[in-house]
Amino acid sequence: MKLTELYLVTIITERYFRNEILEKVKELGAKGYTLTDATGEGSRGIRASDFEGKNVKIELVVSKEVGNDIIDYIADAYFENYAVITYAHPVSVVRGDKYI
Amino acid sequence: MKLTELYLVTIITERYFRNEILEKVKELGAKGYTLTDATGEGSRGIRASDFEGKNVKIELVVSKEVGNDIIDYIADAYFENYAVITYAHPVSVVRGDKYI
Amino acid sequence: MKLTELYLVTIITERYFRNEILEKVKELGAKGYTLTDATGEGSRGIRASDFEGKNVKIELVVSKEVGNDIIDYIADAYFENYAVITYAHPVSVVRGDKYI
Repeated sequence: MKLTELYLVTIITERYFRNEILEKVKELGAKGYTLTDATGEGSRGIRASDFEGKNVKIELVVSKEVGNDIIDYIADAYFENYAVITYAHPVSVVRGDKYI
Repeated sequence: MKLTELYLVTIITERYFRNEILEKVKELGAKGYTLTDATGEGSRGIRASDFEGKNVKIELVVSKEVGNDIIDYIADAYFENYAVITYAHPVSVVRGDKYI
Repeated sequence: MKLTELYLVTIITERYFRNEILEKVKELGAKGYTLTDATGEGSRGIRASDFEGKNVKIELVVSKEVGNDIIDYIADAYFENYAVITYAHPVSVVRGDKYI
């Protein structure tokens, strides 16, 4: 099976921002996403909602270019004021052509 | 602590396929699995069930050889017709001998 | 966006151990954590509770040094007798200075 080298970008954020982030990452080129409920604690900014501790983990399989654009967007839009964790690492993807 | 270099294979699929996939990956050599509920959206094939958006993330710590066999099986059995995401990446595992 | 190369340490354990592990990893230098509910099966030791199959996945973005200390602690404290999965891999982190 041919595998494609892509990036898995993970964004952990308050649920309040879920829909606006999903809309934006699709505009930036993400072809799909996976959501998981999560809770957590970290170095926080101002919380945008009362759902303390209720977070969502958004995972995106994307090309490096799209991944960089998404990371730049998240950093610019949220990191100054909100508690958002974002990281990325390479993954070998089955039928990776579907994600580009 | 000695760490072992293994592979983390992630399969995101409709819950409908969970049990048949778990049975098969154990036959192929996986010693265990972790399941997480997830939802998502992506480039989809025909859905096998009515549980729209209800997915499960299956994570497997395996050797590269077992991982490749699992990836081949998933690709052959599901990718033609169903919405399955599968990717892998190297991980450093504590007591990795338990997974081989 | 400048990214920092850090480590994502993942610990999958019975929920029974969640609070003591979280307390200890913060002592060892973790600045935050993400928790996800999970279930699973694997090569098991004695279970510490009756919540069969109810696990929690703890994810920590840390420096390599802190990650190694956490891995040593988990291995020493739990691996002899309990069902704990622990693995790590490098990640590129937005605003990584927050995690050090």
